[in-house]
Amino acid sequence: MNKTKETKKSGSDNSLIFGIRPIMEALESGAPLERVFMVKGSASDVHRNIAKLTRVQGIPLKLVPPEKLQRLTRKNHQGVIAFTSPVAFYHLENLLPQIFENGESPLILLLDGVTDVRNLGAIARSAECFGVHAIVVPMQHSAPINGEAIKSSAGALLNIPICRTNDVVRTAKYLNESGVEIVGCSEKGDTDFRRLKYENPACLVMGAEDIGISEDLWALCDKRVAIPMKGKTASLNVSVAAGILLAEMAGQRL
Amino acid sequence: MNKTKETKKSGSDNSLIFGIRPIMEALESGAPLERVFMVKGSASDVHRNIAKLTRVQGIPLKLVPPEKLQRLTRKNHQGVIAFTSPVAFYHLENLLPQIFENGESPLILLLDGVTDVRNLGAIARSAECFGVHAIVVPMQHSAPINGEAIKSSAGALLNIPICRTNDVVRTAKYLNESGVEIVGCSEKGDTDFRRLKYENPACLVMGAEDIGISEDLWALCDKRVAIPMKGKTASLNVSVAAGILLAEMAGQRL
Repeated sequence: MNKTKETKKSGSDNSLIFGIRPIMEALESGAPLERVFMVKGSASDVHRNIAKLTRVQGIPLKLVPPEKLQRLTRKNHQGVIAFTSPVAFYHLENLLPQIFENGESPLILLLDGVTDVRNLGAIARSAECFGVHAIVVPMQHSAPINGEAIKSSAGALLNIPICRTNDVVRTAKYLNESGVEIVGCSEKGDTDFRRLKYENPACLVMGAEDIGISEDLWALCDKRVAIPMKGKTASLNVSVAAGILLAEMAGQRL
Repeated sequence: MNKTKETKKSGSDNSLIFGIRPIMEALESGAPLERVFMVKGSASDVHRNIAKLTRVQGIPLKLVPPEKLQRLTRKNHQGVIAFTSPVAFYHLENLLPQIFENGESPLILLLDGVTDVRNLGAIARSAECFGVHAIVVPMQHSAPINGEAIKSSAGALLNIPICRTNDVVRTAKYLNESGVEIVGCSEKGDTDFRRLKYENPACLVMGAEDIGISEDLWALCDKRVAIPMKGKTASLNVSVAAGILLAEMAGQRL
């Protein structure tokens, strides 16, 4: 079961590359990689070098038993397999100053663990429609950005910068220190989202489908908003909630 | 291919009933049926009676070749098979006066051909959260209201009245004549949705994922709104767009 899930998560087979040289070349050329699987416990210098490059470039790396690699390809993988990504990833630290330099007020979307591919796609579609400058997703526990996600986004994922982080809290702190207000949206929020002004630099935080925004990140939010509701269900699909917030934020900025 | 699709569309096997007596009893007791399949070209009085009852009760009826029934069940179906529905259906003509009598301003949602089960579920979830009184869906070319739709709706489909119509234009006319303003939302709309007031009785119309609202219905709308956007994609997922509109409508009514 694990096999099917991970294979599926990592995209279709034609996105798979393997072997030390091809993967080193991909890393050195800056080709977008969705994730890298490497054999656990290797003492090889080349493997260590690949691990280092993935860390520097912010590419998710998973150390796995050799059987896992065997299942991904029967060919001679030399202990390392990667999935290429149809989407180029950006570094928020490079992107944010550019937005300010362009004289724009940054609108960032930070997704704290949206794991459903179709939700991620629909959110990216809304984000692109409402002028979001970048979407930040965590490296782990986040929906893969694969063909299905791109289809659900109606192609928007190819037209909006995506940044990956291995620490959403640190990213939120970085944004905050850069003058960006962190606005968390959840049913636990204490402020009607319509009461706030969003013209200033802002980062909207949306949480996971099941558990919402993680506690550490919620505690760090400058504003905690909710969408007023009645009814029994009392919670919206995360892509719908994100769309409602982004429509308001973009509407105020128009 | 047709087989798989239709079998899937009509829900899981444990929702299937067959044979003249069981289906007559279901119809006479008013048990909710998702749809009825009957053998084409039958001259039987009982079959004609069943057809009449489905029409009166507004249950989708499809006349099919005997092979189609054969594929649905190998048992003795006597030319008629039905799928029960987990959701009870309401008649708008009964419901609307009740809403007025309760001293409430009706908020109706008319879906003109939303065919994706997950979109339908997410829309129903938003509708229940924002106090929509009823969702109206067409009998044909609409997502089935099955277990998957209920799951996507987080159960909301069980808590909001669903009405079926075999003519969305006639339904819109009926609503309009009853004092309900018809508000169509599409990228072709000429008014920013935020500029309107929605406190009065209103029916929001959302269109199909691919072709939007059908021409006849669009022409009949009292107001034609759009959600202002920038970006290349320039169109939102229908469940996101519905959520944005309903949030605004409900927000004004709070």
